[in-house]
Amino acid sequence: MQALTIVKIGGNIIDEDEKLFSFLKDFAVIPGAKMLVHGGGKMATRVAEALQIPQQVLDGRRITDMATLKVVTMVYAGYINKNIVALLQSVGCNALGLSGADANVIQSHKREDTVTGVDYGFAGDVDEVNILWIQSMLEQGTCLVFSPITHDGKGLLLNTNADSIAQELATSLSSLYKVSLIYCFEKRGVLSNAADDHSVISTINSTDFLQLKKDKIVADGMLPKLQNAFAALEAGVCVVTIGAANDLPLLLQQKAGTSIVHE
Amino acid sequence: MQALTIVKIGGNIIDEDEKLFSFLKDFAVIPGAKMLVHGGGKMATRVAEALQIPQQVLDGRRITDMATLKVVTMVYAGYINKNIVALLQSVGCNALGLSGADANVIQSHKREDTVTGVDYGFAGDVDEVNILWIQSMLEQGTCLVFSPITHDGKGLLLNTNADSIAQELATSLSSLYKVSLIYCFEKRGVLSNAADDHSVISTINSTDFLQLKKDKIVADGMLPKLQNAFAALEAGVCVVTIGAANDLPLLLQQKAGTSIVHE
Repeated sequence: MQALTIVKIGGNIIDEDEKLFSFLKDFAVIPGAKMLVHGGGKMATRVAEALQIPQQVLDGRRITDMATLKVVTMVYAGYINKNIVALLQSVGCNALGLSGADANVIQSHKREDTVTGVDYGFAGDVDEVNILWIQSMLEQGTCLVFSPITHDGKGLLLNTNADSIAQELATSLSSLYKVSLIYCFEKRGVLSNAADDHSVISTINSTDFLQLKKDKIVADGMLPKLQNAFAALEAGVCVVTIGAANDLPLLLQQKAGTSIVHE
Repeated sequence: MQALTIVKIGGNIIDEDEKLFSFLKDFAVIPGAKMLVHGGGKMATRVAEALQIPQQVLDGRRITDMATLKVVTMVYAGYINKNIVALLQSVGCNALGLSGADANVIQSHKREDTVTGVDYGFAGDVDEVNILWIQSMLEQGTCLVFSPITHDGKGLLLNTNADSIAQELATSLSSLYKVSLIYCFEKRGVLSNAADDHSVISTINSTDFLQLKKDKIVADGMLPKLQNAFAALEAGVCVVTIGAANDLPLLLQQKAGTSIVHE
């Protein structure tokens, strides 16, 4: 089996041109098959504000009404995705930017939360990844860049969590590749002390995770990120690492960040 | 040589959901290799207005400053492109949406008008089309959907005229395919009397074109469209037709619209 590296980058770095370009240069030199998944929350919020579209957030999740769906489609699949692709091209990485609708690469369904009765609007949960098409692109030497927009196959685009997309891609492709999944965010890894950036926990297994949850060391936004990471590991992804975008070369060698490991 | 149909649709139809969907259903059933090129001027103007970005237009061409480049990238490569792709997927057409940066499919350079001294800002003129990559996608049965955004290979996206993109694609691919190029717009074809929608001129050769220009029957927006059409025909494109989007099935059979023909 060939190696495949999947990197997810989040909101903060996308807003800072220099940091983004520095990250993309590090990403471009990763050898072998690779894919990038990006979010982009802050810019969407700014554009929505400028367009006077009120934004509702519930338990950290954006409620996607029709006007907001337009904004995130413009910002994520348009502005951010195409700028990343153009920057990667400029440093010799042959990138192809995608929404889930393109080549039917990620199909999803509109989330219906029947338990809590919450209507998240046009939010999608992933159903299927077109792994054979992805493989054909990777074999050409093309680097795929995913925006967090998917579709339902019935003509509807859906706003989809970028962490979840990264995990679903990693999981699905682990039948064809030895997949390494790297989540980049603003911290240098999972911290044992939120106030100390140097308190990175180097490895976490599922027993550690239970304890960290119990001790409330892991909470809020870190919780779904780690849940995604363990889901990926359990489904056959070889390596899952969480760390800072500017540590990417070290994260690739597991010399920085937090590695999610088996028992 | 296999046949390839390239259809270009303009601004008006993109703004009307029902007409657009009806057109896309007609497009989806075109047999064999096919590609779609879309514009989308009106929505970009509305978004720019809402974001209070002043729009400058000179001789019918938009001046693309940096703020406007952001808007057209969001609207053209994001909202419009991904909605068209999702709608095509919903009617069984496996579409893949692209900017010129994606897979380096269309490279351009920033237009410098040294003759008139006009600075069009971030407007691109096409240099090169990646015809082998396009061929590999068409051979998979994928339908390519082009937004009018290209890149310069140095990290810069550029706003590019959709009619010109359609002509450059048609011309470049005529070395590999028997290309038919169809320009769809709001009129039923080139009219001999602008006030009479039924006065469609069925064929125009280059001698006719000179006469029509002299008699001022062809002017304004129609002039660059016909210049593009003749450039395509002279460069080896087999059939060039101009007509209304809702006549697409007839245009495909050259039973409606205006055909641009050799002497």
